[in-house]
Amino acid sequence: MTEAGEVLFDKHRERLEAAVAAAASREFYSAYNESPSPRVYGESAAAEGKAAFDAWQGKDFPLTTPGADGTVATERSPFGFDLGIRYPRVTDVDALLTAARSGMKAWRDAGPQARVGVCIEILERLHQRVFELANAVQHTSGQAFVMAFQAGGAHALDRALEAIAYAHVEMSRVPRTAVWEKPAKGEPLRMEKTFTAVPRGVALVVGCNTFPTWNSWPGLFASLVTGNAVVVKPHPGAVLPLAITVQVAQEVLAEAGFSADLVTLAAEDPADKLAATLAVRPEVKLIDFTGGNAFGDWLEENARQAVVFTEKAGVNTVVLDSTDNFRALCQNLAFSFSLYTGQMCTAPQNVFVPAAGIQTDDGVKTPAEVAAGIGAVLEKLLGDDARAVELLGAVVNAGVTERLAAAPSSGEVLVASRDVTHPAYADATVRTPTIIGLGVADAEVYEAECFGPVAYLISTGGTDESIARFRETVQAHGAMTAAVYSTLPEVIDQMRDAALDAGVALSENLLGGVFVNQSAAYSDFHGTGANPAATASYTDGAYVASRFRFVQSRRHI
Amino acid sequence: MTEAGEVLFDKHRERLEAAVAAAASREFYSAYNESPSPRVYGESAAAEGKAAFDAWQGKDFPLTTPGADGTVATERSPFGFDLGIRYPRVTDVDALLTAARSGMKAWRDAGPQARVGVCIEILERLHQRVFELANAVQHTSGQAFVMAFQAGGAHALDRALEAIAYAHVEMSRVPRTAVWEKPAKGEPLRMEKTFTAVPRGVALVVGCNTFPTWNSWPGLFASLVTGNAVVVKPHPGAVLPLAITVQVAQEVLAEAGFSADLVTLAAEDPADKLAATLAVRPEVKLIDFTGGNAFGDWLEENARQAVVFTEKAGVNTVVLDSTDNFRALCQNLAFSFSLYTGQMCTAPQNVFVPAAGIQTDDGVKTPAEVAAGIGAVLEKLLGDDARAVELLGAVVNAGVTERLAAAPSSGEVLVASRDVTHPAYADATVRTPTIIGLGVADAEVYEAECFGPVAYLISTGGTDESIARFRETVQAHGAMTAAVYSTLPEVIDQMRDAALDAGVALSENLLGGVFVNQSAAYSDFHGTGANPAATASYTDGAYVASRFRFVQSRRHI
Repeated sequence: MTEAGEVLFDKHRERLEAAVAAAASREFYSAYNESPSPRVYGESAAAEGKAAFDAWQGKDFPLTTPGADGTVATERSPFGFDLGIRYPRVTDVDALLTAARSGMKAWRDAGPQARVGVCIEILERLHQRVFELANAVQHTSGQAFVMAFQAGGAHALDRALEAIAYAHVEMSRVPRTAVWEKPAKGEPLRMEKTFTAVPRGVALVVGCNTFPTWNSWPGLFASLVTGNAVVVKPHPGAVLPLAITVQVAQEVLAEAGFSADLVTLAAEDPADKLAATLAVRPEVKLIDFTGGNAFGDWLEENARQAVVFTEKAGVNTVVLDSTDNFRALCQNLAFSFSLYTGQMCTAPQNVFVPAAGIQTDDGVKTPAEVAAGIGAVLEKLLGDDARAVELLGAVVNAGVTERLAAAPSSGEVLVASRDVTHPAYADATVRTPTIIGLGVADAEVYEAECFGPVAYLISTGGTDESIARFRETVQAHGAMTAAVYSTLPEVIDQMRDAALDAGVALSENLLGGVFVNQSAAYSDFHGTGANPAATASYTDGAYVASRFRFVQSRRHI
Repeated sequence: MTEAGEVLFDKHRERLEAAVAAAASREFYSAYNESPSPRVYGESAAAEGKAAFDAWQGKDFPLTTPGADGTVATERSPFGFDLGIRYPRVTDVDALLTAARSGMKAWRDAGPQARVGVCIEILERLHQRVFELANAVQHTSGQAFVMAFQAGGAHALDRALEAIAYAHVEMSRVPRTAVWEKPAKGEPLRMEKTFTAVPRGVALVVGCNTFPTWNSWPGLFASLVTGNAVVVKPHPGAVLPLAITVQVAQEVLAEAGFSADLVTLAAEDPADKLAATLAVRPEVKLIDFTGGNAFGDWLEENARQAVVFTEKAGVNTVVLDSTDNFRALCQNLAFSFSLYTGQMCTAPQNVFVPAAGIQTDDGVKTPAEVAAGIGAVLEKLLGDDARAVELLGAVVNAGVTERLAAAPSSGEVLVASRDVTHPAYADATVRTPTIIGLGVADAEVYEAECFGPVAYLISTGGTDESIARFRETVQAHGAMTAAVYSTLPEVIDQMRDAALDAGVALSENLLGGVFVNQSAAYSDFHGTGANPAATASYTDGAYVASRFRFVQSRRHI
């Protein structure tokens, strides 16, 4: 079976090396085309992917999961219909973990290259099903199709390859064998040493509702490629993208001669609390979690036997000081607020603006005028329902609509949300963003994440206060992203310094086709692990290095 | 001040690059000569070092420590005299941590190269004081002088340089700036990105009594070079080696224009429980600890806000199956038991031997005959008091003599310990090792570490049982080292497999000048982090990668 893996390693070597090089140079690279165009993927690909997705509905998903008894069907499309797909329901965690562990020795002994080959082959097969995956992501997360194809398909594949590339580099840092020769008085001391990368144990990946693939694949592949077995516990609202993932992984593992149970799907009824049960099992040594603070904090506190990588909530912040292109500023921010209805962990929330207004190429703009400027762009972007839904997608769950409904009571409604009727899905829940005006004293409102299409425009005494509040709120409550608009180099410098102190990535004067909520694999780090929003970063050395250990043996020669 | 650091980086670049290369190839390398010979260090070096050590006794050690009030003198040489050196006693942890943090921004902003330059310069200055340090290590740990010079001086410097080299590689994985250009329909999207290594916070290093430098320097320098401030909390019995360390670090930091408080000494009266207070402070984000299970487990459980690297107790194991050189086997093991009176975290403790005996070049040897063989070598090695003390050193503290006194009651005394009179230090406590015979059923005895000169010779039903017990005890109770003696390739293979399962380094058939308790910097990993004895390894990527984070900014160009 090692040979099968080595063959796959050779097959994918070029792609791997390109990914390694890009992660080192941080230059642009993508291994998976992000355009769902027929010119790229062929005339029939889109229809076939849709048909494959449709065919799963109302059926038993064909996975045999150790420790499962009966099935659960928990998914409803945010576009307004039940998927009705039934997955094996895990009830016997002992049996699941025993099966997961049973294949680990052969997987370890196959060595890093074989594992890398198998893992990139899994990505290759997932890429072959990218349209099916895009439909699955769309109808579990509520992302519009193109975004689901990109963020849930091509970009997720790139993030997965990035994690594999990092792990490959880490496992390659020492040779398989080395000869050590220490000069001595007579004959030198000579030893041969062997170094083996050994896994930590079973890895648990806890998926989220909004980005079931993009946020799960990096941890899944980082753990798998380093020799661990992976139990994937999907969000009950977004099972299918990970069920397909597990199906593909098992197929490739079995073909290469390894245990299919190295990757298993642990579907559950939400009342089962399966993630909490699994997370404290002694066999579980690695946990990747994306989701809310409550369970993320609980994991960090309770899963003491495991290394825990979390991505939780934060208060993403924009500081407005001045601009030489007010129109582009409004366009850029309006797009960031609208994309997937603000349901991104990277979407901006807190916009600090001096109460006296900001200098622009169109004169001084007060907070109300900034809101009006953004509001006018939103009206253009989202005024037409059919166009609007392609940007907004649908509201992922009731929590978002509830927070949106409560938002007006927290401040002054500067831009109101409106209901959008989806032309194709009458029962879809679609909303445009709202902008709420606050004062700097309203900290109890803006110091918490309001996940969804709610932005706060917060009036401050000036840019110094804006930056101070940015630094303090992110240090205390975390953030995945930050942005600044200023024409003054000294303000940019101040913000860079504050962003380093707060440990958050900073985007400066985004006025074109790059948005604060987007991060590019191999170049942008997603999260830093340096503020309370996340203990992990996609992908740095810390993300992969502790997923395995080197164990050596030595002998005289 | 960045420039001063850059100058130091250039000064030490060659040494750094050699260390990086050795850590990658795992070939032999040493930057600091391990021979205390006058031919290497000059005729006067030894006497000057001794004089410098003597001069500290009975004095106030000249450090000004923020948050200190009064002094403590807690050290007594295991060779039988009080050092009487008074150190500032930390009573105000707020003041200490505030001072520690105050220099971090400038240290961060100086960049990785400047920090690497400063840190290697600190090693250079410590090396200049290596004879003084060796005396300090000898008279706090009880190591004999040559061992104190090597393990506490030259080898400790190599381990420190190794940690710096690993951190340098890790911080160099991404460029300071990169240009990212994504093809688009019209003009490509072009951005400049800046990547900054930012520290985690204050690092706490908790030293141990037996290896105050060797076990503290890797964590100290790994944290410092990645931008953190470091508070060094020495063992009350071994303060001087770390006081000298802090003095040198402060001197170099200040000369290079940085805050001396980036490295501080937190001396205490043992009753102060200062480590426990510091360990749970929110400012403390990194903890390195070497010592017993009780406090190590407490740290892992309670210091939730920090990344905790521990090295604790374990049951180092030898499996005897067969040998083609019984005499050399006995010599090798006898030396390992004797070196520093077995007071090494790497010293072997549990020796599994088939009750029916092992095949050797000198016929079958029963457990009693193996013990007799080792005993005969011990008699030769340690029969002469003056020679014995150069190998044994002295007993570090009363805990060791108490365990040694209790050992005979736990089994059959196969080789008895004897008191040795030190020819130069009449009040030194010096003991030879004992070998206690046990049966495989005496798990309650041999499954716990008996730190000190106590080895268990455990009779088993055969090598299969020996290997099974090895795997089980190390998985459950941890180990820093393991060894096997066998002439059969299939037994070696079985042991390698068991060692991978147990996550412990394996030495095979050591019959010459390498001993199981020795590990060489740049080549041998010390600890694996893969069994309960340690969560850290000197040095792998995991040991350095999470001590800092990359924070980026980006802008259109």
